[in-house]
Amino acid sequence: MQLLKNSVCAPKGFKALGKHIGIKKSGSLDLAVIVSEVLSDAAAVYTSNKVKGAPLIVTKSHLKNGKAQAIVVNSGIANVCTGKKGLEDAGETAKLAARELGIKENDVVVASTGLIGAYLPMDKIRSGLKNIKSHLSTNSEVAKAILTTDTLEKEIAVNVDNFTIGAIAKGSGMIHPNMATMLCFITTDAKISSKKLDKFLKNSVNKSFNMMSIDMDTSTSDMVAILANGLAGSVDEKKFQEALDYVCTEMSKKIARDGEGATKLIEVEVKNAMTRSDAQKLAKSIITSNLVKCAIFGNDPNWGRLMCAMGNSNAKFKENLVDIYFEKEKIVSSGTSSNFNPGEVKKLMNADALKITIDIKQGKENAIAYGCDMTYGYIKINARYST
Amino acid sequence: MQLLKNSVCAPKGFKALGKHIGIKKSGSLDLAVIVSEVLSDAAAVYTSNKVKGAPLIVTKSHLKNGKAQAIVVNSGIANVCTGKKGLEDAGETAKLAARELGIKENDVVVASTGLIGAYLPMDKIRSGLKNIKSHLSTNSEVAKAILTTDTLEKEIAVNVDNFTIGAIAKGSGMIHPNMATMLCFITTDAKISSKKLDKFLKNSVNKSFNMMSIDMDTSTSDMVAILANGLAGSVDEKKFQEALDYVCTEMSKKIARDGEGATKLIEVEVKNAMTRSDAQKLAKSIITSNLVKCAIFGNDPNWGRLMCAMGNSNAKFKENLVDIYFEKEKIVSSGTSSNFNPGEVKKLMNADALKITIDIKQGKENAIAYGCDMTYGYIKINARYST
Repeated sequence: MQLLKNSVCAPKGFKALGKHIGIKKSGSLDLAVIVSEVLSDAAAVYTSNKVKGAPLIVTKSHLKNGKAQAIVVNSGIANVCTGKKGLEDAGETAKLAARELGIKENDVVVASTGLIGAYLPMDKIRSGLKNIKSHLSTNSEVAKAILTTDTLEKEIAVNVDNFTIGAIAKGSGMIHPNMATMLCFITTDAKISSKKLDKFLKNSVNKSFNMMSIDMDTSTSDMVAILANGLAGSVDEKKFQEALDYVCTEMSKKIARDGEGATKLIEVEVKNAMTRSDAQKLAKSIITSNLVKCAIFGNDPNWGRLMCAMGNSNAKFKENLVDIYFEKEKIVSSGTSSNFNPGEVKKLMNADALKITIDIKQGKENAIAYGCDMTYGYIKINARYST
Repeated sequence: MQLLKNSVCAPKGFKALGKHIGIKKSGSLDLAVIVSEVLSDAAAVYTSNKVKGAPLIVTKSHLKNGKAQAIVVNSGIANVCTGKKGLEDAGETAKLAARELGIKENDVVVASTGLIGAYLPMDKIRSGLKNIKSHLSTNSEVAKAILTTDTLEKEIAVNVDNFTIGAIAKGSGMIHPNMATMLCFITTDAKISSKKLDKFLKNSVNKSFNMMSIDMDTSTSDMVAILANGLAGSVDEKKFQEALDYVCTEMSKKIARDGEGATKLIEVEVKNAMTRSDAQKLAKSIITSNLVKCAIFGNDPNWGRLMCAMGNSNAKFKENLVDIYFEKEKIVSSGTSSNFNPGEVKKLMNADALKITIDIKQGKENAIAYGCDMTYGYIKINARYST
C-alpha cells in the first residue's frame, strides 16, 4: 500500500471543486462538488439519529439503484428540521447540479452540514452551482469546502496494485459512533458492484467511524458515501477491504485528533476480552467518558475513572484481572494501582497523542476506539455556535 | 407538608456528627455518622456500575435482614478497586463504629466517596471513630462531612401529619441516572417495614435521582439509603410516598444545581409522549447532551441540538409535531423554528435555572429530568483531581 498526495481525485476519472458561494459569513469555502467521468457504483451508510437531515432522505432515495456520478455538499447550514421545504431544497440542489454536469438528477448524492433548523439560502445555491463543470479539476480545494468547526482538512489517498482509494472527511463536534457519524466521501477507480461495495463499506465503518467518539452526540446529517467508477478494472477484494479499512481508520483518527477543542488524539485498545462486542463496549465506554477525557487533558493518570467507565459499559470482565497501560507504562496491575511514578506518567501524557491499552486477560477478542480529550476549547466552541 | 430546618436529625430519635479525621488534606470534614436510638427498618438502592466500591458490598450484606441502626460515611477516598484489603477495611470500619455505638456490626451501613484506587487510611479511621458516641447531637455538621467537590451542603427535612423525613446528599460529578448515582441518606420516624420501605424508595428514586444527570458517568460507590425507626408510629402510606418523592426530587435538584462547574439548574419536562418510557428517554437524552449543556451555558437558544438529542434517544416521536418552550417562550412550533426573538430568549436564559418543556403532542405520558449546564469550571475541576 502506497500513500499518495491528493484525495478524492487520486483515483482515475474523478474531478472536484471547492468554492465560496456565500452560505458562510466568514467567506470561507462552503460548496464542494465531486464528479466521476462515468456513472459509478455507489453505497452509503447514514446516521442512526431518528431526526434525519433532508439531504440524507434525498440521497437515500437516489442511491436505491446503487448508482451515482456526483456528490454535492454545502457547509454552513445542515438543512435539518426544515420540513417539506427542506426536502424540496435538497431535491432542487441535486437537480440543478445534475443539469450543470449533464448527468441525471437521480445520480447526485447531496449532503449538508452546519446549523440545524435553518433553511438553505437557495438563491446562493442556484448562483453557486452555475458553470461548476468548467471549474472542476483534479487539484481542487474540495477537502476545505466541507468543513465547519474543523481546524484541519482531512484527506487521504492510497494506491494498492491496480486500484486507488481517495477520501475527504469532515467532523469535529457532534460526533459519536453508530453509522456514519460525520461526512466522509470516498472515491475509487476499483470495479466493484454496489452490493459488494455496501458490504465492504459497512465492514470498514464498523471498525473505524463507529469506534470513534468526540462528544456522544450522533449528528442528524452525517453519512459516509463511496463511489467506485470501475476505471481501474477488477481488483483483489481482500486487498480492497484492507485498503478501505485503512482509509476509514486514518480518517477517523484525523477527525478525532481535530475534535472540537481537542489537544490530544486518544486511542484505547482493549485486548483479550471474552467477545468482540465486550471489547468494543469497553473501549467505547472509556473513550466517551467526559471524566476520562478531562483527566487526560490535565495529564492526570486518574485510572479509577477508566475502571469506572468500564464498569458502566455493560460488558463482562473481571475487575481484579485488568491491566492498564498508558503507552508502555503499566498503571494498573490486576485491578489495582501498579505503584507507578505519577511524575513520569504525567510527562508521557503531555503529548499530542495517548495510546491506552487495557488487557482484560479473559479471552482473545480485541477492539480499538478513537477519541480526544475534553478541554476549555470544547466549551468555548459549543457555548457560542448558532448566535 | 411543612419544610423543617435541620436534616437527618429532624425525625424523632436520630443523632449525627460530622468531623475531620485527616483523610482530606484540606482540613475539611471527612467523617459523618448518623445513628438512630432504636434499631430501624432499612432499605437502599445501589449504583448500577459493575465495578462496585467495597463499602457497597459490605452494606448490601449488612442490609440483607432489612435492619440498620447507624450510617458511617467517609469522604476523600472511595475505597474502590482496592481488592480484598478494601473489603476488610470497610468491614473493620463498621465493626469499630458498632463497638463505639454499642450496636451490632451488622446494623451499620458504611459508605465512602472520593478518589478511586486508594486504600482507606485505617489508622485515621480508627482514631477518628474513638468516642464518637459522646459527640453525637441533633445539631451536627453531618451534611458537610460527606461532600467532595460539592460547593454546597444538600439537606432537607419535611413534616407531614405525624411523621418526618430528613435527608442529606452528596454529589457533584460522576453523576448519571441508574440506581443510586450519588450518596443520599434519608431518615424517618415513620413506622414502615423494610419490605415496603424498599418499594417506596425505589419508586421515589426512579422519579428523582434516576432522572438526574451531571456527566453521564455512573459512579462506582454511590447509594441512597433510608432508615425508618418507627418512633412516630404508623403513617398514611400514600402521603409517605408523596413526601419521599418530594424529598428525593428536591435533593436531586440540589445536586444538579451544584454539578461540577455548573452555573444553572436545567429541568426538562417532556409532555404527552406515547409511553412513560419514551418521555423518560427523551428527557434524559436532552439533559445528558454535552452540546445542549454547552449551548445553555452560553445562553444560546440552539434548539437544533435538542432535536438532535431527542433523535438519538431511541424513543418514538414525530419530529414535525414537537413544540419546545424555554420557560414560557415558544422556541419550536411543530418541529421548526417559531421565529422567536433570539435577544429576548438569550435574556431569559441568563438566569440560574432554565425550565425546558417539550410537547410531543402524541400521547399522555410525562417525565421530568434534572441536570446542569457544562462550563469551563467542569473541565477545570476534572482535569486536576487526583494529583
